[in-house]
Amino acid sequence: MVEARSSEWLEAALRPLIPVPVILDAVDHLHRIGALRRKLTRTCLPGLLVTHLADLRYLSGFTGSSAALAITSRKARLFTDGRYATQAAEEVQAARVEIASGSPAIAAVQWLAAQPGAEFAGFDPACTMVADLARWKEALPSRLRRSFLTALPAPLVEPLRRIKDEDELALMSEAALAGCNLFDHILGFIRPGLQEIAVAAELEHKARLMGAEAMSFETIVASGVRSALPHGRASSALLPRRGFLTLDFGVILKGYCSDMTRTVYLGTPKSNERIAYQAVLEAQETAVAAVASGVRCGEVDEAARGVLRREGLAEAFSHSTGHGVGLEIHESPRIGAGQTTRLHTGMVVTIEPGVYLAGQFGIRIEDMVAVTPTGCRVLTPAPKALIEL
Amino acid sequence: MVEARSSEWLEAALRPLIPVPVILDAVDHLHRIGALRRKLTRTCLPGLLVTHLADLRYLSGFTGSSAALAITSRKARLFTDGRYATQAAEEVQAARVEIASGSPAIAAVQWLAAQPGAEFAGFDPACTMVADLARWKEALPSRLRRSFLTALPAPLVEPLRRIKDEDELALMSEAALAGCNLFDHILGFIRPGLQEIAVAAELEHKARLMGAEAMSFETIVASGVRSALPHGRASSALLPRRGFLTLDFGVILKGYCSDMTRTVYLGTPKSNERIAYQAVLEAQETAVAAVASGVRCGEVDEAARGVLRREGLAEAFSHSTGHGVGLEIHESPRIGAGQTTRLHTGMVVTIEPGVYLAGQFGIRIEDMVAVTPTGCRVLTPAPKALIEL
Repeated sequence: MVEARSSEWLEAALRPLIPVPVILDAVDHLHRIGALRRKLTRTCLPGLLVTHLADLRYLSGFTGSSAALAITSRKARLFTDGRYATQAAEEVQAARVEIASGSPAIAAVQWLAAQPGAEFAGFDPACTMVADLARWKEALPSRLRRSFLTALPAPLVEPLRRIKDEDELALMSEAALAGCNLFDHILGFIRPGLQEIAVAAELEHKARLMGAEAMSFETIVASGVRSALPHGRASSALLPRRGFLTLDFGVILKGYCSDMTRTVYLGTPKSNERIAYQAVLEAQETAVAAVASGVRCGEVDEAARGVLRREGLAEAFSHSTGHGVGLEIHESPRIGAGQTTRLHTGMVVTIEPGVYLAGQFGIRIEDMVAVTPTGCRVLTPAPKALIEL
Repeated sequence: MVEARSSEWLEAALRPLIPVPVILDAVDHLHRIGALRRKLTRTCLPGLLVTHLADLRYLSGFTGSSAALAITSRKARLFTDGRYATQAAEEVQAARVEIASGSPAIAAVQWLAAQPGAEFAGFDPACTMVADLARWKEALPSRLRRSFLTALPAPLVEPLRRIKDEDELALMSEAALAGCNLFDHILGFIRPGLQEIAVAAELEHKARLMGAEAMSFETIVASGVRSALPHGRASSALLPRRGFLTLDFGVILKGYCSDMTRTVYLGTPKSNERIAYQAVLEAQETAVAAVASGVRCGEVDEAARGVLRREGLAEAFSHSTGHGVGLEIHESPRIGAGQTTRLHTGMVVTIEPGVYLAGQFGIRIEDMVAVTPTGCRVLTPAPKALIEL
């Protein structure tokens, strides 16, 4: 077991200051755990088990691949394994760190069950495998096996993560601008005859040199007829002399994902291609203009879909208009047809309508936007008018 | 709904030929589905739901991010969503493809329940979220909700994936050799004062240009005292004039992961550093020599651990000796202390003991090996004697 830097007395001493931000680190994890504790109190939940890695990073700063966080109204313990002893001690200030000899999640469950007066603890069924739950239950004393672990009726951490705080908005803006710089760079690199994968390699290399930890998903470089694949990962196909080229990519910078798409044209587009591009652009801009706190996600989707319907392209738009983004590339809310969830200030979402005509071509344009009280701030200010290369 | 290339009559016509390989594609998915069907028959399971993406790729060739495969004794259907209509039709020959309007898994469950005489179907609890299972049950007719979906007592696809067939061994050897070429390349690039992240960027760029789809995990470049972090991902730290540098990386080539580690020295090592390196090297080579079909995983672990214990370094070896690798970077079996699972011909595992002295240095050496009847074949023949740069 590793002695953590933040001991319980320190945690206890700092607790009365919450919710006034206490900066122990660049990111205020104590504040976030405090917000989560208030939710536990409101829902009369004496303890919570957190195992989803993005949730762990959000709440504690831990960036390793194996850990579990146990939270009660008074204590927070992060359990990890021996590989992460040094790293966890460096990264985690808002919870005491313990090194588990076996499964960190089982150690966390057993610790929660051993707290005085603990009758039950919540877990998130959307982040828990059926087999793991069975193992956790088996590791409990038999009198607790049936009732101790309780599936949360609704997630508790995810709604906190949906609304980005100022630290997060600054990091996400930085990640999104890095994406724009990459797009600017790659325009000078693209030429007919290059393999799609070479374009991806150049983009990813530049991203790494800019400090990205990784790409936020497999880079999509889809040229010519391949642009009609909504998820056309970079292949060995050669960029054509004439045709669309869709670039959909993102970086992870200090944990936060960026996501943007631009479709450019190699050569001179035919008039039907130009018309289709204008339709997608209008759909995208109309949807961006529809974003504001209080608006339902389905209304934003309809703003894009309505434009494409008017142009006879509704059938060619085969996915939803966007999604939340943050520590993970796909977060809630989903901006899809009929979604009644309302946008709120501080959410960051993508707006990315597209049209896909199999065997012909595809076009998608995507921005990341931060929702504000009266509209939104576009985090990806790269040009959207059709670029001919 | 997209018309699949392989229709049911074709599947039926080819079934009598199994287990004689029928090459429809580079990889014989019909053969694999046939092997799975024989297991269904042996376990009296009328239907199976497969949702784990690596399992789906193994069985059908589908490489997208959203699908579910439903298998009965006579039929196989792959359900995906509209984004993957074209891709699934191109990739999947061994199952009929259907485009689901909602969740592919729910469509697969409903299809299984609608098969004549279907009383229950299995799912893998190690790959199923508690919340997903609840949603699948709700989508069933009420009379089937309680009993239709049955957790498999043991996984069915994973034991097939453990034993690599010849196609797979060839692909994995190719991926492992690509890793060795990258190591050779990066030796000429490394110099004191470079950021760790620049080394990772160069490695990853070269990997992409060699045709890698992605890295198989976040590249570890850990120099100086950071080498004592078993999972020290490349950071902004500068390579020192003197000290160890651990490089742990892998590529994904045609879906298959490689994984290798080499630790080199910048400058001239002190005698204690040289002694520690020799101990890790002896531990690694002793463990490699212990690998053979029929040997228990715990014996291989003990071969490495015994050497380090003798050198007084047992405490500094804080993780297990290795793991299976294939379509995923971490597969079964785990080569850890006390593991009774036996190795079998065709398994591919890593052998990667290490020592980590916090605040001082760390060393790890890792090969990928394919188990044979009498020993193993090392897939990563890069030099292991200490390289001083």
